[in-house]
Amino acid sequence: MNDLTQTPEMLIATMGARARRAATEMAMVPSARKAEALLAASASLRESAARIILANRADMERGAANGLSSAMLDRLRLDEARIAAIADAVANVAALDDPVGQVIDEAVRPNGLRLQRVRVPLGVIGIIYESRPNVTADAAALCLRSGNAVILRGGSEALESNRAIHAAMVRGITQAGLPAEAVQIVPTSDRAVVGAMLRAVGLIDIIVPRGGKSLVARVQDEARVPVLAHLDGICHTYVHAAADPVMAREIVVNAKMRRTGICGAMETLLIDRAYPEPEALVQALLDARCDVRGDEGVRKLDDRVEPAQPGDWDTEYLDAVVAARFVSGMDEALAHIAAHGSHHTDAIVTGDPAVAEDFLNQCDSAIVMWNASTQFADGGEFGLGAEIGISTGRLHARGPVALEGLTTYKWVVRGNGQIRP
Amino acid sequence: MNDLTQTPEMLIATMGARARRAATEMAMVPSARKAEALLAASASLRESAARIILANRADMERGAANGLSSAMLDRLRLDEARIAAIADAVANVAALDDPVGQVIDEAVRPNGLRLQRVRVPLGVIGIIYESRPNVTADAAALCLRSGNAVILRGGSEALESNRAIHAAMVRGITQAGLPAEAVQIVPTSDRAVVGAMLRAVGLIDIIVPRGGKSLVARVQDEARVPVLAHLDGICHTYVHAAADPVMAREIVVNAKMRRTGICGAMETLLIDRAYPEPEALVQALLDARCDVRGDEGVRKLDDRVEPAQPGDWDTEYLDAVVAARFVSGMDEALAHIAAHGSHHTDAIVTGDPAVAEDFLNQCDSAIVMWNASTQFADGGEFGLGAEIGISTGRLHARGPVALEGLTTYKWVVRGNGQIRP
Repeated sequence: MNDLTQTPEMLIATMGARARRAATEMAMVPSARKAEALLAASASLRESAARIILANRADMERGAANGLSSAMLDRLRLDEARIAAIADAVANVAALDDPVGQVIDEAVRPNGLRLQRVRVPLGVIGIIYESRPNVTADAAALCLRSGNAVILRGGSEALESNRAIHAAMVRGITQAGLPAEAVQIVPTSDRAVVGAMLRAVGLIDIIVPRGGKSLVARVQDEARVPVLAHLDGICHTYVHAAADPVMAREIVVNAKMRRTGICGAMETLLIDRAYPEPEALVQALLDARCDVRGDEGVRKLDDRVEPAQPGDWDTEYLDAVVAARFVSGMDEALAHIAAHGSHHTDAIVTGDPAVAEDFLNQCDSAIVMWNASTQFADGGEFGLGAEIGISTGRLHARGPVALEGLTTYKWVVRGNGQIRP
Repeated sequence: MNDLTQTPEMLIATMGARARRAATEMAMVPSARKAEALLAASASLRESAARIILANRADMERGAANGLSSAMLDRLRLDEARIAAIADAVANVAALDDPVGQVIDEAVRPNGLRLQRVRVPLGVIGIIYESRPNVTADAAALCLRSGNAVILRGGSEALESNRAIHAAMVRGITQAGLPAEAVQIVPTSDRAVVGAMLRAVGLIDIIVPRGGKSLVARVQDEARVPVLAHLDGICHTYVHAAADPVMAREIVVNAKMRRTGICGAMETLLIDRAYPEPEALVQALLDARCDVRGDEGVRKLDDRVEPAQPGDWDTEYLDAVVAARFVSGMDEALAHIAAHGSHHTDAIVTGDPAVAEDFLNQCDSAIVMWNASTQFADGGEFGLGAEIGISTGRLHARGPVALEGLTTYKWVVRGNGQIRP
């Protein structure tokens, strides 16, 4: 695999063919065996902690020499505790329900043909990701649990850490009798390999990018293979006239400030002109050390509000900044969300169930919420156990994507000699 | 819309924006109103028969002058009976169950958040098709029933017929109060408009090509918008050692010869070396006037068998021609299908249920069959009522795609003030 004369296309063709063979084998592996293999991989990660930390040290030193920021170095850093957490996460995936083999629906036709739609693995998943080495283990575990093969391509800054984590997992899954080639890692940091993955139609069935906006944008722009991704999470909270003021304040502050850097964080606050306590909302945000950029109405509520510029309504701050404006009723709120949102997660706060149901129906986002913080937009919080990503596309899977999103289905038809008239 | 200074991109941007507005409205239309509108469209098609036939005559005359083959002219031709059949098909779609609003699953989280996944329309569907004008009505009806807006782009040879059918349908649906712009037709035969549709990311949510292989190949190659399509239907029937000889013969002849031009027609026959009556199989095909191209073993069965060339195993004949070879057991059959198939429909004939289940599990095709003719690969035969196409892709929808495939889902979260810890 380290033949330096190989082009990126040749490398991916070789890895893709191995992955396809492994995928064929993985599709037949019973659920219990896949769970066993993940538990073995989890144990192997723990046992390999010293080796992984050694590899990580090399990445950290190279990173420091290359001038990585301290935030990036912190994300890269692995220690015993972080490796234990990674191993735990892999064990947790082993405990999730396996979607493979589930019968989605079935029917008997008048001619006696018996039809079933049965869940089967997608096949070969490509994961392209940055910095945090835990993605190596998380993504591989989800792909394996759902019977897929995976090709991992992590960031160059974490190459040695990722390879060490990958090697530990492979030791575990091969002990359990699963094919080593079900989990492969691109062994080079040549950026051209990413391009080869993105063009690998027929070799890779779906690409999942995990990382910052520039990575996701590149993937979406260049990919010929289908992509499961979200680019922006410009999430809105609309505080309706009939919202309970205490609830509205708590939800708004939590939606923005609990963690500002996640895609489910609120970026825009829409306040109904008929809502009785707008000052308290805005002041609660300001008091929580959030910058507020407001329209004219919002600026009148508090001197600390800065004027919003047109671009603010389309900005995912991922920071302690919020854009806030007044709207005249739900139609204007929905029109604002349709014009500026990213179809990720949008919420209404109201005590009026009929208004809430209208909003939930009409707002065209992957996740729509009533009287809850947009920070709940997360596969774990939704009970999916873990997520491979959040999709803002409309096809295949939408919102938090976990094991089911890594499957497709086949039609199984059982007859007793039927021919078509 | 007929402004000649418009570029194809401007035309599609305008039509796309109108379609998006209509889609927003359509998503909220109750099922009964959509059904009513389709019945009105069906009635309007009948009432407009004379106008449609007049428009069709213009297409036929232009086609004859342009040297269209008699087969193509026949596919293009409309008369009272064909228009009645088109109107009936639209009425039948009105009677299908509407997937929109179906709750796929639901859960209550420990924190009290109530979650549902609810089916919603995909949005804006683009249909790119050739010759048969009935696709105009069929595709529009399926898109409307499932709450979508549609942009139709038919073949230039049927432009007047398609416009007349479109106009009749729009009269019906607007009478029923639905937006006219839910069904739009590209008013020109400029081929550059197809390219603009294929690049219309954000304007069109999915493209469905309906037509010959060169059209589908162009669409798959150029599209930046997701495509729902199959390129080839290289379907196999594997006659296992334990197949009942009478059943095997009837299934094989039906799978190949009932209609040779459909994508579910068998193209390759795989005969197990342990199957006791291979001559009868091959002779039944020859006697049914099918050309048989065989490997050495098959050629020994009958003088009329021609030698198969390597390309034969990868050819979709869509004609009274079949490639036939012997295989040594199921593994070789599955390996042949994996190497040469198109993941459309593949069948096994056997009296051994355990062998059958192994085949159904291991064969990685959209449709896998046991003891039935591959000619059943059809949405109508599967009880879906009608199909927008058959997908050999693995994402979103696989096999026959009907109303459900034209929907996605949203996550609806109902809380009572939950904030995330």
